[in-house]
Amino acid sequence: MTTPVTTCRVILIGFGAVGHGFATILAQHGERLRRQSGIDIRIVAVATHSRGAVIDPAGIDLAGLLASAGHAGGLAALPGATRLAPTDIIRTTPAEVVVEATWTDLATGEPAISHIRAAFAAGMHAITVNKGPAALALQALRAEAAACGRHFGFEGTVMAGTPSLRLALEGLQGCAIHEVRGIVNGTTNFILSQMERGMDYATALAEAQRLGYAEADPTGDVEGFDAAGKAAILANALLGAALRPADVARQGISQITAADVAAAAAAGERWRLIARVWRDADQVRAAVAPTRLAQSHPLAGVTGATNALTISTDLLGDVTLIGPGAGGVATGFAIVSDILALYRNR
Amino acid sequence: MTTPVTTCRVILIGFGAVGHGFATILAQHGERLRRQSGIDIRIVAVATHSRGAVIDPAGIDLAGLLASAGHAGGLAALPGATRLAPTDIIRTTPAEVVVEATWTDLATGEPAISHIRAAFAAGMHAITVNKGPAALALQALRAEAAACGRHFGFEGTVMAGTPSLRLALEGLQGCAIHEVRGIVNGTTNFILSQMERGMDYATALAEAQRLGYAEADPTGDVEGFDAAGKAAILANALLGAALRPADVARQGISQITAADVAAAAAAGERWRLIARVWRDADQVRAAVAPTRLAQSHPLAGVTGATNALTISTDLLGDVTLIGPGAGGVATGFAIVSDILALYRNR
Repeated sequence: MTTPVTTCRVILIGFGAVGHGFATILAQHGERLRRQSGIDIRIVAVATHSRGAVIDPAGIDLAGLLASAGHAGGLAALPGATRLAPTDIIRTTPAEVVVEATWTDLATGEPAISHIRAAFAAGMHAITVNKGPAALALQALRAEAAACGRHFGFEGTVMAGTPSLRLALEGLQGCAIHEVRGIVNGTTNFILSQMERGMDYATALAEAQRLGYAEADPTGDVEGFDAAGKAAILANALLGAALRPADVARQGISQITAADVAAAAAAGERWRLIARVWRDADQVRAAVAPTRLAQSHPLAGVTGATNALTISTDLLGDVTLIGPGAGGVATGFAIVSDILALYRNR
Repeated sequence: MTTPVTTCRVILIGFGAVGHGFATILAQHGERLRRQSGIDIRIVAVATHSRGAVIDPAGIDLAGLLASAGHAGGLAALPGATRLAPTDIIRTTPAEVVVEATWTDLATGEPAISHIRAAFAAGMHAITVNKGPAALALQALRAEAAACGRHFGFEGTVMAGTPSLRLALEGLQGCAIHEVRGIVNGTTNFILSQMERGMDYATALAEAQRLGYAEADPTGDVEGFDAAGKAAILANALLGAALRPADVARQGISQITAADVAAAAAAGERWRLIARVWRDADQVRAAVAPTRLAQSHPLAGVTGATNALTISTDLLGDVTLIGPGAGGVATGFAIVSDILALYRNR
């Protein structure tokens, strides 16, 4: 039996680690995806901020695209190179989906929000792996998507491609969710795990930087800004709130000392940076803070760069999901997952 | 804005703990479900093997239905009581969904398979929480459902209402799954957890029986038959196999001694009854066996009657789901979840 194949044309905005991971998945597994799902995902345009853009209405050659990441000329050296700006590419290139994978700005959400609005204006679905739009404008973007009969996918904004939002919104549909707690930042979890093995904070941070888990300026991770952005997304997506990252009570891990870690271990406990969102009477509240957990707690056993969420519900009690929270391919899979959901849920 | 409401009429076959849990959810949360999902789930018939049957095309009064469980007269005392057999009720009562919640027979799958086929013959979707049909005839029943344009839901057959199958089939769609390992029997996990606290096997089993976790004849749980049935479902549903429970290599926990548990603890390990399905060249294999896991292993921390699955994939590595694996309401939720999925996935 031959499954009829539907072509899904994608405009990819941003070509960093996640865009590269997405293209890698299509290059290595596109044939299997087509066979199993009946969806033929083709990247018809890639636009970047500083490394040019390329358009091919029939589907960009993935080998050439992937090789361009290492070339000084960037996308400008590829066939179909263009000087059009991202929003002009979205306006003029026929496609079904725009994938927003530029840098995260948790203050303004730009330029990502404008790219997503351009997608809706052009009649396309929008998928973001960028936390800015989901943390700052989720309810507005959902309403705009619904108004034009399109979808807004944002699975990749929390726990990379581990299907945490889909678990809560689809798998647990019918339950009332009253609280979500989790480890949503792999960098800080790696640092705390290293400190449990005897390193002090500065050494563990340097190790995380050496391995590429932490940036040269680690503030966004270690002071909890990244986790606060994800907490806002969880509050807004799963508890119907309209919180902004700045509304999240936030405390990072930079004040945790080797002595703190040793004291917790002596008491049979572990420090974890926990993002928590919960209903408090009529309000939804959100906080990020280092928290001591008993070693038997499901989140205490989550080590290294792995992420986890515990979703507390009325009908099932606690349901916990553990999986990768970062990485180009793991986050690139979130894009694939959001695309397949578009067609599955029709 | 008023959401248009779709009525979903359900014929419930079997009214044990799970049927009772499903009706309890509708009685306590039906209004919220209707408001949030737009689906008005109404039980229009209940049929049991030995306690009668009842039909009300407008929807059976749930308070009366729930109260009947404690009455000697059973369903025969309710308005709309009937002597029709289950298959005749399915044939003659208009409904959208048949829910099969009778007893599990892992040798024949009957009478559940006949109930499901009667549903398809009547043009209805079928949902089972009964392991028999899914363990013995999954591929045939899926094909029969597809041939008549209906759905076959079986989320409740593994990990109760914890959405393990939906996670794998929808959330991880696009990944290749090569192995699934898990704790899928709460009774044995409870016994092993109690033995870790110092009980011997016989005392822990008696405690499980006292609390209602284990039956008077505990063979199905402690010798791994229940877990083998679930392993067959996982192999068939997630790896495309056509294994029967008898094809699963099976070893139970009745030979595990207090000394075995102490020896594992001394080595920093824990015994867990692990169901495992995996690809081995062109074959799919399945096994159930007591297994020593390092205490740091995500499945080692799963204690008591909780269940867990670790799904190993190409694009995300390991993804682990932990949640309830038994209970009337937790399994009744699986029915709600399969019903909501019918409408979400259209």
